Order: sequence, then structure tokens, then C-alpha cells
Amino acid sequence: MPKVGICLAGCGVKDGSEIHESVITILALDRANAEIVFFAPEGNQHHVVNHVSLEAQNEKRDMLLESARIARGNIKNIKNIKASDLDAVIFPGGFGAALNLCNFGLVGEKCKVHPEVERLILEMHKAKKPIGAICIAPSLVAKVLGSQKVQVTIGTDPGTASKLEAMGAVHVACNVDDIVVDTKNKVVTTPAYMLAKSIKESASGIEKLVKKIVEMIA
Amino acid sequence: MPKVGICLAGCGVKDGSEIHESVITILALDRANAEIVFFAPEGNQHHVVNHVSLEAQNEKRDMLLESARIARGNIKNIKNIKASDLDAVIFPGGFGAALNLCNFGLVGEKCKVHPEVERLILEMHKAKKPIGAICIAPSLVAKVLGSQKVQVTIGTDPGTASKLEAMGAVHVACNVDDIVVDTKNKVVTTPAYMLAKSIKESASGIEKLVKKIVEMIA
Repeated sequence: MPKVGICLAGCGVKDGSEIHESVITILALDRANAEIVFFAPEGNQHHVVNHVSLEAQNEKRDMLLESARIARGNIKNIKNIKASDLDAVIFPGGFGAALNLCNFGLVGEKCKVHPEVERLILEMHKAKKPIGAICIAPSLVAKVLGSQKVQVTIGTDPGTASKLEAMGAVHVACNVDDIVVDTKNKVVTTPAYMLAKSIKESASGIEKLVKKIVEMIA
Repeated sequence: MPKVGICLAGCGVKDGSEIHESVITILALDRANAEIVFFAPEGNQHHVVNHVSLEAQNEKRDMLLESARIARGNIKNIKNIKASDLDAVIFPGGFGAALNLCNFGLVGEKCKVHPEVERLILEMHKAKKPIGAICIAPSLVAKVLGSQKVQVTIGTDPGTASKLEAMGAVHVACNVDDIVVDTKNKVVTTPAYMLAKSIKESASGIEKLVKKIVEMIA
């Protein structure tokens, strides 16, 4: 039974992990008979956003505790996760990926990646284990593996794509229902809600990504 | 294109809507080409629960704003929703259904249902439009339509089932991958995480429920 990590970053598209993308990933992995290992960093989210008004709220929320809502409580601190615990790892999207797991959403190509996220991506890459990234999460992989000329997609937005290329990545345009596979670096990415106009469009690419990740493990 | 309402109650299994059940419902409705209308009551949740320690946190969260995380911002106040706006309505589970939309989780068969939820269920029933309820949410329907001897399931737990029967409902035991259909009252229920040991088990019943609800509209 392959063990696949899901790295979360809060609970909600505007300040945490995108909920639909996360649940679609979880369901597809469970249907592929994978064991899922949930984890997230601990510490405050970059901010907390009112998902109706889109304004920042004056409060603090912890990345790990909010992520536990998606994981139904069964979640670990990323600092306790090693590449040897996993056969693959997947990063769902949402602003949490670009504001909590790194600060790409604030400073673009000059971003810094959360040290534990960076460590785990480097460990997985070194161990030649597959890495999946959805929506805006490929920005993490582009930053950490830019020196490897990693091939990724965030869909078709030229502004975002050029920032990934400024970090050393090779951006490949991709439709919402498709994936980009970097066979050498074992990285699989899909645009999901970077392009999706509906949850079923988002699911079409994510389900393909999960299938590919599980194939690469086998 | 059928218009199906989803009534949410926060964001997280322990104090709001169960996230997996909600997203599985959304995806199945979108794949059935239904238009989804999200709504929730406004006002504070009964409480806020730390989803790792399972202890109550000393803070307030609004049902509508937290539900907006699942709805990606596209959500209305239930007080502005009438049965004439919908072809069917579905209530996902989670403790929010039993603590925010009513207080069944606190006082069992003596519970009171949120007045706007009660109004909408009565309006939908009178208009002969289908009502779906997942996991513990059938407790709402049992309370409001108990006088109609509504047939529902919460799975197989005898303690919970007897409380539904004390409200006038007829409880029918049901496996996780199946549904109970009350043809006369147009009510469809499924146990989901009342019984499910995994997300794919939860999805098996919910996808059947959505299919049946859409069939009943047509």
C-alpha cells in the first residue's frame, strides 16, 4: 500500500489550503488504495481572510490546527516527517501554499520557502520519490528545484509563469484537465483552480495527477 | 439545469459541516450538471473546536463566514432562500448540523431546529421538492417532519436511531454505501461518516444520494 503525504497549509482558498482541491486529492488517493499521511507546519498563518468580504480579519489561526479540519484530526507536524516515511508527496493549492508554505504570493520569484517544506522537497527529490503540486503550489517546487530546471505548470497565466521561470523552472502551459510530468525530477503538476471554472474541471486534472503519482510509485 | 441548495453550518467535522461530505456532494452535483446554491445561517457557531486536541477553543466563529470557506465565497444567508429558488436541498453532516442547525447533539429528541432551517424544510416538503440529508443531518429532518412519519437513516447506531424515532421518524438501518428513500416525503438519507471508515466509503453513499435527488427532480 503506497504511503502518500499531503502537505496542508490551513483550511480555505483565500488563506489556507484550497478545500475542494484537497478533498479531491484525498478521495482519489483513497480510491487508488494509497495510505494518506497528513501534515502541515505549525505556527500562525500569514493572515486570516473573511471568505465573503475578502478582507483580512484581525485574528490569528494556526496552520496545523486549521489543516486538521480537512484531515479530520489525523495530522502531523511536518517537522516530524521524513522522506523515508513516504512514497510520494502532494501539495494542494490555495493561497496557503503561496502565503504560508512560502511567500511567493507576496514577493514572487524572490520568495522564501518554509524551511521544513524546503527540507522535505529536497529530501524527496534526492530519494527520487514523486512530488505532486496543484494550482499555485508548483511555485514551491519551482523555487526549491529551480536549479534542476524542473518542469512545472500553473496553467496559462503569463505573469505567474514568468515568475516561475525567473526561479529557474521551465513553465509548460497546460489545460485544466491535464498534467505536466517532469520524468527526470519526478514532479507532476496540474492547474486546477488556476484555470478551473467549476469543481469538476478542477477534479479532472487532479485525478489525473494522483493516478500518475501512484503509477510512478509502482 | 436543476438548482440544488446545499445548507452548510461551518467548516470542520467537530464544530461545522463535515468537509469531505460537503465536497463530495458538491462534486457529485456538478458532475450531474446541477447548479449549486450555497447558503448557511448567520450567527455564532455553538462553539469552536480544536480539531487536534478536540477541546473547545475560547473564540467565536460565524456559521456563514466559515461555511464560505467550503463554498469558495459564493454563499447566501439562508433567510434569503425560499423553496421557490430551489429544485432540491441537501444537508451535509458534521457536528455543525447537530449543534448549529439544531441542538440535537446536546439534547437529543427534545431539540429545537434553527428557525430558518425549519422554515426551509417545511417549505420544501410542502412544495414536494426532494430533501437530502447526510450523516447526522437526518436528525433535522426527523424533528421537522416527524409528524409525517418520515423515513430516515443515520446508519445502524441504536441509541441515535431511537432518538430519531422519539421525534416521530421511522428509522431504517442502512449500510454506508447505500441510501434510504422516503418516496412519499421525498427525503433521501445516507449514513456517510456515521459509519464510514474512509472517505471512499463516505463517497459511495453520498454519490448514490445525489444521483437519487437529481432523478427525483427530473
